Amino acid sequence: MTNTKIRVGIIGGAGYGGGETIRLLLNHPQAELSFVHSRSNAGNPLYSVHADLQGDTELKFTDTLQQDVDALIICLGHGESKKFLQDNAIDARIKVIDLSQDFRLGESVQGRSFVYGLPELNREAIKKASNIANPGCFATAIQLGLLPLAKAGILKEVFATGITGSTGAGQKLQDTTHFTWRANNISAYKTLTHQHLKEINQSLKQLQSGFSDAINFIPWRGDFARGIFVSSCITTDRSLDDLKSIYKDFYAGHPFTIVSDDTIDMKQIVNTNKCLIGIEKEGNKVVVHSAIDNLLKGASGQAIQNINLLFGLEETTGLKLKSIVF
Amino acid sequence: MTNTKIRVGIIGGAGYGGGETIRLLLNHPQAELSFVHSRSNAGNPLYSVHADLQGDTELKFTDTLQQDVDALIICLGHGESKKFLQDNAIDARIKVIDLSQDFRLGESVQGRSFVYGLPELNREAIKKASNIANPGCFATAIQLGLLPLAKAGILKEVFATGITGSTGAGQKLQDTTHFTWRANNISAYKTLTHQHLKEINQSLKQLQSGFSDAINFIPWRGDFARGIFVSSCITTDRSLDDLKSIYKDFYAGHPFTIVSDDTIDMKQIVNTNKCLIGIEKEGNKVVVHSAIDNLLKGASGQAIQNINLLFGLEETTGLKLKSIVF
Amino acid sequence: MTNTKIRVGIIGGAGYGGGETIRLLLNHPQAELSFVHSRSNAGNPLYSVHADLQGDTELKFTDTLQQDVDALIICLGHGESKKFLQDNAIDARIKVIDLSQDFRLGESVQGRSFVYGLPELNREAIKKASNIANPGCFATAIQLGLLPLAKAGILKEVFATGITGSTGAGQKLQDTTHFTWRANNISAYKTLTHQHLKEINQSLKQLQSGFSDAINFIPWRGDFARGIFVSSCITTDRSLDDLKSIYKDFYAGHPFTIVSDDTIDMKQIVNTNKCLIGIEKEGNKVVVHSAIDNLLKGASGQAIQNINLLFGLEETTGLKLKSIVF
Amino acid sequence: MTNTKIRVGIIGGAGYGGGETIRLLLNHPQAELSFVHSRSNAGNPLYSVHADLQGDTELKFTDTLQQDVDALIICLGHGESKKFLQDNAIDARIKVIDLSQDFRLGESVQGRSFVYGLPELNREAIKKASNIANPGCFATAIQLGLLPLAKAGILKEVFATGITGSTGAGQKLQDTTHFTWRANNISAYKTLTHQHLKEINQSLKQLQSGFSDAINFIPWRGDFARGIFVSSCITTDRSLDDLKSIYKDFYAGHPFTIVSDDTIDMKQIVNTNKCLIGIEKEGNKVVVHSAIDNLLKGASGQAIQNINLLFGLEETTGLKLKSIVF
Repeated sequence: MTNTKIRVGIIGGAGYGGGETIRLLLNHPQAELSFVHSRSNAGNPLYSVHADLQGDTELKFTDTLQQDVDALIICLGHGESKKFLQDNAIDARIKVIDLSQDFRLGESVQGRSFVYGLPELNREAIKKASNIANPGCFATAIQLGLLPLAKAGILKEVFATGITGSTGAGQKLQDTTHFTWRANNISAYKTLTHQHLKEINQSLKQLQSGFSDAINFIPWRGDFARGIFVSSCITTDRSLDDLKSIYKDFYAGHPFTIVSDDTIDMKQIVNTNKCLIGIEKEGNKVVVHSAIDNLLKGASGQAIQNINLLFGLEETTGLKLKSIVF
Repeated sequence: MTNTKIRVGIIGGAGYGGGETIRLLLNHPQAELSFVHSRSNAGNPLYSVHADLQGDTELKFTDTLQQDVDALIICLGHGESKKFLQDNAIDARIKVIDLSQDFRLGESVQGRSFVYGLPELNREAIKKASNIANPGCFATAIQLGLLPLAKAGILKEVFATGITGSTGAGQKLQDTTHFTWRANNISAYKTLTHQHLKEINQSLKQLQSGFSDAINFIPWRGDFARGIFVSSCITTDRSLDDLKSIYKDFYAGHPFTIVSDDTIDMKQIVNTNKCLIGIEKEGNKVVVHSAIDNLLKGASGQAIQNINLLFGLEETTGLKLKSIVF
Repeated sequence: MTNTKIRVGIIGGAGYGGGETIRLLLNHPQAELSFVHSRSNAGNPLYSVHADLQGDTELKFTDTLQQDVDALIICLGHGESKKFLQDNAIDARIKVIDLSQDFRLGESVQGRSFVYGLPELNREAIKKASNIANPGCFATAIQLGLLPLAKAGILKEVFATGITGSTGAGQKLQDTTHFTWRANNISAYKTLTHQHLKEINQSLKQLQSGFSDAINFIPWRGDFARGIFVSSCITTDRSLDDLKSIYKDFYAGHPFTIVSDDTIDMKQIVNTNKCLIGIEKEGNKVVVHSAIDNLLKGASGQAIQNINLLFGLEETTGLKLKSIVF
Repeated sequence: MTNTKIRVGIIGGAGYGGGETIRLLLNHPQAELSFVHSRSNAGNPLYSVHADLQGDTELKFTDTLQQDVDALIICLGHGESKKFLQDNAIDARIKVIDLSQDFRLGESVQGRSFVYGLPELNREAIKKASNIANPGCFATAIQLGLLPLAKAGILKEVFATGITGSTGAGQKLQDTTHFTWRANNISAYKTLTHQHLKEINQSLKQLQSGFSDAINFIPWRGDFARGIFVSSCITTDRSLDDLKSIYKDFYAGHPFTIVSDDTIDMKQIVNTNKCLIGIEKEGNKVVVHSAIDNLLKGASGQAIQNINLLFGLEETTGLKLKSIVF
């Protein structure tokens, strides 16, 4: 624990990921929000975009890129992060946490190489890293549901269905986020072709080197704003007790990922940085349910968790969030 | 009952009002949907826009205005209806039912004058009319809650709050219909200045000529797609029993407006053409609750009700709709 | 088509299934609702329980079992149907449609044997039947998604996830239907052990006699009231075009089950008797999405469809329902 | 600020109010949760009831009443608080914060008299108090919308409509909290007779002694779990600018109540302890919109705010909560 606070700037602060990152940093006891960069909103107070911040801060968006920070969290769209780092010279000593998918598969830019920022997989590497590629939301939920099986070397073909809230589709107005359409509705998209499959496979192979089976993943759009719930079905002869031990051992010491002995539901973790895991077994099939908040453990919360690790803070600092529950 | 079906064309069939009108006409036993006009979708099947119609009809949108119909239902935006009737010569014998607010206050166009199409107020005039200005959604709910008081000459200043579903805001993508924003949210808009106040006042004065008190109306956006619920508070010395008699007498013979002796809730009428009314009294204040489906009794359902009256059909034909209830 | 209407009585009319059956019969042009039996509500109007029926009917619940009907639709809970038929002598000429699971697996009672009432599977047998065991809701959605593959003899192990609305859990107050818990929540239940698997397997074997692979089914509770959406994943070498042909051929002539060429969403069919099917293929995996309204095609609507078949009516009579869409 | 933490016990910890109080105390940097009393759950971990607390605490419910605390927060039902304090001898030095309505109107018990715990009205009295009667949820939202007018002596008859989430109705299963009924539904209840009117009138008279006009309040049930939104309409000749100044002056120095210059919506404050106020004027009518989270500023959050004041802590300690926003 240090006396001086970690100084953090945000690039692309007007979207959902940026907003959540702002909210977390405003309440973080050992980090401070130095600036929030947004070209289109420069000069306006943060609450002109994030209206819930009225009364919390008078900080304004800026279009000036400040270098007197310890870390930058980049909350730009996919493709834009790489371009931003190409177009702007960032001091080498500034650590970068990027929320896009631009650097999750080993890509580098301007001499910066990135560690895949899933603490349950790469905690020690993250602590020593300079740059972090923050995992995708579905990628986080699915990996946390499968990593212990890969570590045990018993992962086989996976059949997973996951559902995500509308915030997963971002702030842009689109047909599938029109309230009238989405309310009380369920639909599938990117069936078997979700872009997160690559980073999931990369992680699974990191633990179970020969793994080459398919992750058959069917994503659904849910009629709620926040949260992800995934059920993954895998064939195994291991007993339920064995499996629970494998999971509990794997996540021992990881404060945010909890293996529950009860049935789980998504709202237990909404508005928190937790991942909750439930395991059931019938015949030779195990079903692993995993739930996260897509904007927190699936994005901004995990970014702050990575900040904590990068700067030697207690991993949970600023992340003990009251769940919404109801 | 006639042997030949009423032939109806729809102008502006790609929006919510157009879609509901299509749905009702497809199932109407004594009317048939002759064509659906939509410039931007011409040539495409109706279900390319209204995806729920798959399996119901192979009819396609057209950009040809056909004159071999008995009635046109115009489902264009406010201002566009007038322009359409100015720009297109419609046979004088074709009756026009217009869903916009262009003709609700006595406006006429190309020699066409319009009867305000609220059957509970103007049924006999509607039967003899050539053109109908279909009432607004909030206007319908509020008027049906107040007309009996005006008829009895006891209406005074009104304090009303109403809530409407997202379909009231139309199909266009906008910030206030983004799912992420609207889900689990309530907000006020157009406080005391809603555009429907004019047609409401016009109707109230039709029944209580000297009425000049304010209708103080606060509209809210609700976190649901369909339905309107209004609570109107008025000062009166009449007893609750008297008031219930006044309402029941007024609506006797009107099949869609029901004065309930029990507490009412909005979902009792969602997906139907009904208006449900509940009355409560405390001290010298009466509160009238009124509920409609904004797209049916508040738009397309009332248009079909007017079609039935215009062509001498039983008023409820094609409008006995199964409620959604749950 | 007959001049005299089919007379139908309902046993157990106070629940969701009973309510929907009432709603459908009230609007059915060739059937009439003779009586609604409910011991606990006898003497009260139907709208005392089903409040949306105000203004639609003054019929009252009765505790007298009338025999002057052509058909009985039994809407009692599982186990109670069998008991009801054991305890009450029903005229042999009265056809029975039972919504429970008591007779779906070949069970008989008092000399009555039952045909499994899935018209897309057993239409000809239903037409000649005396008693119908109406399928379960998830069972209907899953079977309609798989039957064409079984008919083609190419069905293999299935991995399916399905989500259902709160009406699927019935009218009884329980923790999992508390609004506060269920709103914005997702949870799994009866993982791999849902009771409908038996009737599903029975039907699949009827078409593909040697089929013995597992149907691995994970049911989820959704945060909406009506509707079921299922995604089923199966391994096959057939091309997507072949598969679509197989499905379209199978459902040709079946008016309620529609194979869509577009992506589908659940609300396209909510409040209708339709089943909508979408098919996607990636590698050697086909994913079949199927959607129904659990209370209509999954219960009461299918019961009326069976009534229509039993009495020689056009299959869609009284079932051309306006969808809720929004 | 003290070095030792304030020790707090909770009586009645299994309900919604108890649960939220637990969540806040677990994250409070200067208070600690000493025990949670619940007769029916004694011996079970808190997360057996509040499932979202898995991974946060291993504390168990107890049926032993411990006296080694600085404060007790009583989260029992109305009527039960008084009974609890009559039946159990509590050390006189222990401060009591009661969430029920038992002591809001000047009632006392066992020599304990209570200060009405609305900090924006009674902050100095609260600081010196021994016992606090925590305000009701609707009472908080309505008062915060009206107090500045009463302070200015210009409050007149009020017409208010408010909407509340299902958590306002508590944890007990009831017809009006059944998901199937409440989803997408709106209904009125306790029209003009809500039990909070008494405490509202008491506070208004405290500031505007001659005030005797009616508060005509129509409460609605909303189809969401958390939050309250109230629109209050009052006649006044003061200009909008004057009114805004009156409000901003009144709430200057009160960290949680924010007078917005923009339109407000409910979700801006859900899951926070804030009250957000928006003011609009048309003719001689002012409409004040006020929004709170019924479980936080309307219950448990305000209780912790009172704890902070009672023990000389910074008023916002432990209450800088991340909003749910989406």
